[in-house]
Amino acid sequence: MAHHIDINCDMGESFGTYVKGRDEEVMPYITTANIAAGFHAGDPHVMRETVALADEHGVNVGVHPGLPDMMGFGRRTMDATPEEVRDYVVYQLGALRAVADALGVTFGHVKPHGAMYTMLSESADHARAVVEGVLAVDPDLTFLATDMNIYEVTEEYPITAVFEGYVDLDYRADRSVVIPRTKEARDPDLVADRFVSIATEGVVETPDGVEIEVPAESICIHGDGPNVVELLEAIHARLDEADVELTSLTELA
Amino acid sequence: MAHHIDINCDMGESFGTYVKGRDEEVMPYITTANIAAGFHAGDPHVMRETVALADEHGVNVGVHPGLPDMMGFGRRTMDATPEEVRDYVVYQLGALRAVADALGVTFGHVKPHGAMYTMLSESADHARAVVEGVLAVDPDLTFLATDMNIYEVTEEYPITAVFEGYVDLDYRADRSVVIPRTKEARDPDLVADRFVSIATEGVVETPDGVEIEVPAESICIHGDGPNVVELLEAIHARLDEADVELTSLTELA
Amino acid sequence: MAHHIDINCDMGESFGTYVKGRDEEVMPYITTANIAAGFHAGDPHVMRETVALADEHGVNVGVHPGLPDMMGFGRRTMDATPEEVRDYVVYQLGALRAVADALGVTFGHVKPHGAMYTMLSESADHARAVVEGVLAVDPDLTFLATDMNIYEVTEEYPITAVFEGYVDLDYRADRSVVIPRTKEARDPDLVADRFVSIATEGVVETPDGVEIEVPAESICIHGDGPNVVELLEAIHARLDEADVELTSLTELA
Amino acid sequence: MAHHIDINCDMGESFGTYVKGRDEEVMPYITTANIAAGFHAGDPHVMRETVALADEHGVNVGVHPGLPDMMGFGRRTMDATPEEVRDYVVYQLGALRAVADALGVTFGHVKPHGAMYTMLSESADHARAVVEGVLAVDPDLTFLATDMNIYEVTEEYPITAVFEGYVDLDYRADRSVVIPRTKEARDPDLVADRFVSIATEGVVETPDGVEIEVPAESICIHGDGPNVVELLEAIHARLDEADVELTSLTELA
Repeated sequence: MAHHIDINCDMGESFGTYVKGRDEEVMPYITTANIAAGFHAGDPHVMRETVALADEHGVNVGVHPGLPDMMGFGRRTMDATPEEVRDYVVYQLGALRAVADALGVTFGHVKPHGAMYTMLSESADHARAVVEGVLAVDPDLTFLATDMNIYEVTEEYPITAVFEGYVDLDYRADRSVVIPRTKEARDPDLVADRFVSIATEGVVETPDGVEIEVPAESICIHGDGPNVVELLEAIHARLDEADVELTSLTELA
Repeated sequence: MAHHIDINCDMGESFGTYVKGRDEEVMPYITTANIAAGFHAGDPHVMRETVALADEHGVNVGVHPGLPDMMGFGRRTMDATPEEVRDYVVYQLGALRAVADALGVTFGHVKPHGAMYTMLSESADHARAVVEGVLAVDPDLTFLATDMNIYEVTEEYPITAVFEGYVDLDYRADRSVVIPRTKEARDPDLVADRFVSIATEGVVETPDGVEIEVPAESICIHGDGPNVVELLEAIHARLDEADVELTSLTELA
Repeated sequence: MAHHIDINCDMGESFGTYVKGRDEEVMPYITTANIAAGFHAGDPHVMRETVALADEHGVNVGVHPGLPDMMGFGRRTMDATPEEVRDYVVYQLGALRAVADALGVTFGHVKPHGAMYTMLSESADHARAVVEGVLAVDPDLTFLATDMNIYEVTEEYPITAVFEGYVDLDYRADRSVVIPRTKEARDPDLVADRFVSIATEGVVETPDGVEIEVPAESICIHGDGPNVVELLEAIHARLDEADVELTSLTELA
Repeated sequence: MAHHIDINCDMGESFGTYVKGRDEEVMPYITTANIAAGFHAGDPHVMRETVALADEHGVNVGVHPGLPDMMGFGRRTMDATPEEVRDYVVYQLGALRAVADALGVTFGHVKPHGAMYTMLSESADHARAVVEGVLAVDPDLTFLATDMNIYEVTEEYPITAVFEGYVDLDYRADRSVVIPRTKEARDPDLVADRFVSIATEGVVETPDGVEIEVPAESICIHGDGPNVVELLEAIHARLDEADVELTSLTELA
C-alpha cells in the first residue's frame, strides 16, 4: 500500500507591486498552498490570483494568517492577547475563504505564519484561542501544526490536525529545527532522501546522524529557497520508486 | 395589512482604542447593522464586539466595505479599477462573514461605504464588478443600494437588492440628497413624519414642499447625528399608529 | 528663589476622523506637548493642528514616537531590534520637526510612547540605539526620560535628559508606578499636593505613607484622565503660594 | 565650456522584506536620488540604507513623497485636498531629512511621486500648497519639476526649481510622454543620443522625427527598466566626447 503525504508551501506573499516568491514555478509541484491574507503579506488582488493559480494545479487552498506587521513580514512577535490573535485569524480566514468561494474553490485549512506560529507554540492560551476561533467558524477545517506544542493543543479539540515536517532544514536531536540566517541552496538528493524517509518511515536523520521521529503527514517546503524547484523535482522523481503518493492535506483528513 | 420597512445604520466604526459612534445606544432601535470591516474603519476585535451586540438585539448583520483609507475614513475616491474594488469588497465581506460565523450569527447583506459607494454610483463598471463579486461569493446575500444608479445595476443580476431612503437628510426634487457640512440635530417630528410617509406611501417631501417618490424598503439612519437616539425614539413612537412594522432587510427579501 | 518645573502631556493622538483626548482644553495648562507622529496615533494633518495649537499657547513642542501599531495604539511590545526602533524614532522625529519648521515653531524634545518606552526601559541596547539616533539627528534635543533605567542610559551620552514624575498615578516604594486598569478621576488636592512636593522638595508619598525621592524636573499629566482639567486647575492654583514657576522643558535644559 | 546636467533616479522603493529596484547597481551612475519615504514605498530602515548608499557614491539625496497607498504603490490618484497633500509632503520630507541628518548627509530636494505628481500637474491649487509647504520647511530646497504645469507653479514662488526630461521614454510633439504598459528594454544608443541632445541643445526628437524643446537640467532615468544599467553605461560613455559634465541637482541650483 502506498504511503500518502502532502507537500505544503507558503504562497501569495506578494503585495501590491511587490513580488515575492516564485509561485508559478512552485505551484505545479505541491499539493497544499498556505496563502497569505493581507496582514503580513498578500493583498485582496494577490489572494485572488494565488487562489486561481492553486486551482489551476488542483492544489488545496488554505489561509496562512499572520500578525498585522507588513513592515516586519509578520516575523516579529508582539504582545497581543490570545483574543486579539484569535480575531486576526478569524478575519484573515474569512477573507481568504471568500476569495476561494468567489472562484468556486474549496477552502480547506489554516496554518499560522511566522511570529504568530511562535506565539502559539510558546503559549497554549494563544494556541487554544486560535483553535477555538477556527472551530467556531467551520469545524471541518484542518489545522496544519508546525510543531508538537501546537499539535498537542489541537488534540484537546475536535479539530483535524496535521503535523508537518521539514526536509529543506536540518533537525536537531530534540526535533527543533535549525533556521539558517540566509537561505542557501540545499542538496536535492539529501532533501529527497529525507522526504522519502519521513513519508515511508516517519523518521529523519539529523546532520549528526541521529535518527529522530517526525510523524509528519505533510512536508513544508520553503518557496523562497534558492533551488526550491530543483528540490521539488528531486522529490517528485523519487515518488514512484518509494511508493509514495502525494495527497493533499484535506484528502488526508 | 401592515407596512414593512427596515432601519439600517452604519456600525462598528471604532478602531483600536479609537471610539466612534454610539453603537450601544443605537442598536436597540434598528433592524440592520452595516458593519465596517477594517479598511476605512473597524478592526477584527471591533467587528466581533459589534456582531455580538447586533446579535443581542436581533439585528441583521451585513458588511459595510470601504476603500483602504483609514486616514480618510474611506471618504476619498481613488483611481482604483473595478477589479480592485471588487476584490476589496470580497475580502471585507469574507472577513466579516467569518466573524459572524464564529459567533453563530447569520450574515445577510452588503452596503458599500462612502467614497466606494460614490464610485459605484458614478461607474456602472465598478458597480457591476462589485455585484458580480458578491454574487460569486454567495448568491443569497442582499445588496443594499444607496441610490438609483446602483439599484439599476443590481437589476441586471439575479441578486436581491433593497433601495434605501433617508429621513434625517433633506431630498432635492431630483431625489438627490443634501449632505450638510456638519452634522446637526434634526427635528424628531419631521424625521418621524418622513419615516411614516416613506414607509406607508413611498413618498417624501423636499424642504420646498415638492413631493417625490422614494420607493425605499429600508431607511438609513446616520448614527453620528447629534440627536440620533431621539430621532429613533420618535420613529418608534409612531410605528403602531401608522401600522408600520420594522422588518429586517433579510426578512424583507 | 522660585522652583522651576515643567508639565508635559501627550497630545495629538487623534487620527483621521477619530478624535482622542481634549487637546484644546488641556493645552492652556501645560508647558510641554509630546506629539504623536503617525505610527501609534496622529497623522500629518493632526500633527499640524496640534503644533499650531501648542504654539498658540507657547507650549514647547516635541515628538512622542511610538511603535508602528495604530490598531494597538503602540501599547504592545514587539520583537523589533534596537536598530529598527532607532529608525522608527528618527523617522517620526523628522516628520514632526518638519511640521514644526513649516509653522515656524521650535522643536525641542523626544519622549518615547507606550510599549516603545517599555522596550527602552527593559533593554539598554534599545535605549542606547534610540539616544544615539536622536543625538545623530540633532545634539541639542532634550530626551524626556520616563523612568530611571532610561535616564541612566542617557547619562552615558552628551544629551540633555530630563527625568519626569507622576502626580495623577500612585508610586510604590520602589518608585515604580501603579497603572490602573481604567482611568479614574483623581483627587485634585492630593494631585496638587504631590505636584508641589515634587517641585519643591523632589519627594512624594506613596499611598502607604512612604516618602520616596522623585527628582523630577517635569511632571507628566495624563490628558485622558476623566477630570484632567480640574487637576490642572488645582495645580495652577497652588503655584504662587508654593513659589513654583512652570518652566518648559527646553528652558530648563 | 562644458554642459552641465543631472541624472536623477527614484531609489529606496523596497519595503520591509520586499525588494524593488536595483539601487546598488544604479547608484554609481546617477547624481541625484529621489528616495521614497514610507507612504507609497520605503520604510525607516530602507530609507537609512538608501541614504547611506547614496552618500557612498556622492549622490545628492532628496525625498520622493507619495500618496498614502502602499498597496497601489502611490499610483492611484485620490480625492485628497491641497492641504492634505501638502501635509503628506511635509511629513515625508521631514522623515527623510532626519534620516539624512542622522547620517551627516545633506538633504537637497523634493520630487513628488506617481499619482501625487499627476494631481499637482492637474491642479495648480495642489501644486501651490505643496510648494508652499516645502518653502515653509526650508526655502533652500530644490523642487524637481516633472512637467511644465508644475514648473510654472514653482515660478510663482522664490523656490529653486529644476525641470526634468526623459530619455528612456518617448516624447509626443506636445512634450507629453508615452508611458508604456510594460517596461521594455530601450536601445542604449538612442537613449544616449537623446541624453546628449537634451544636455547640449535642450532638444529631443519624437519617434516621428519632430524636434521638440526639452529645456531640462536633469534627466530622469527609470531604475526599473530591464536594461537600465546598460543605458546608464551608454550615457556615461558619451559624456566626455559631448563635453557634458554630470552635475548634481543641488550643485546646479
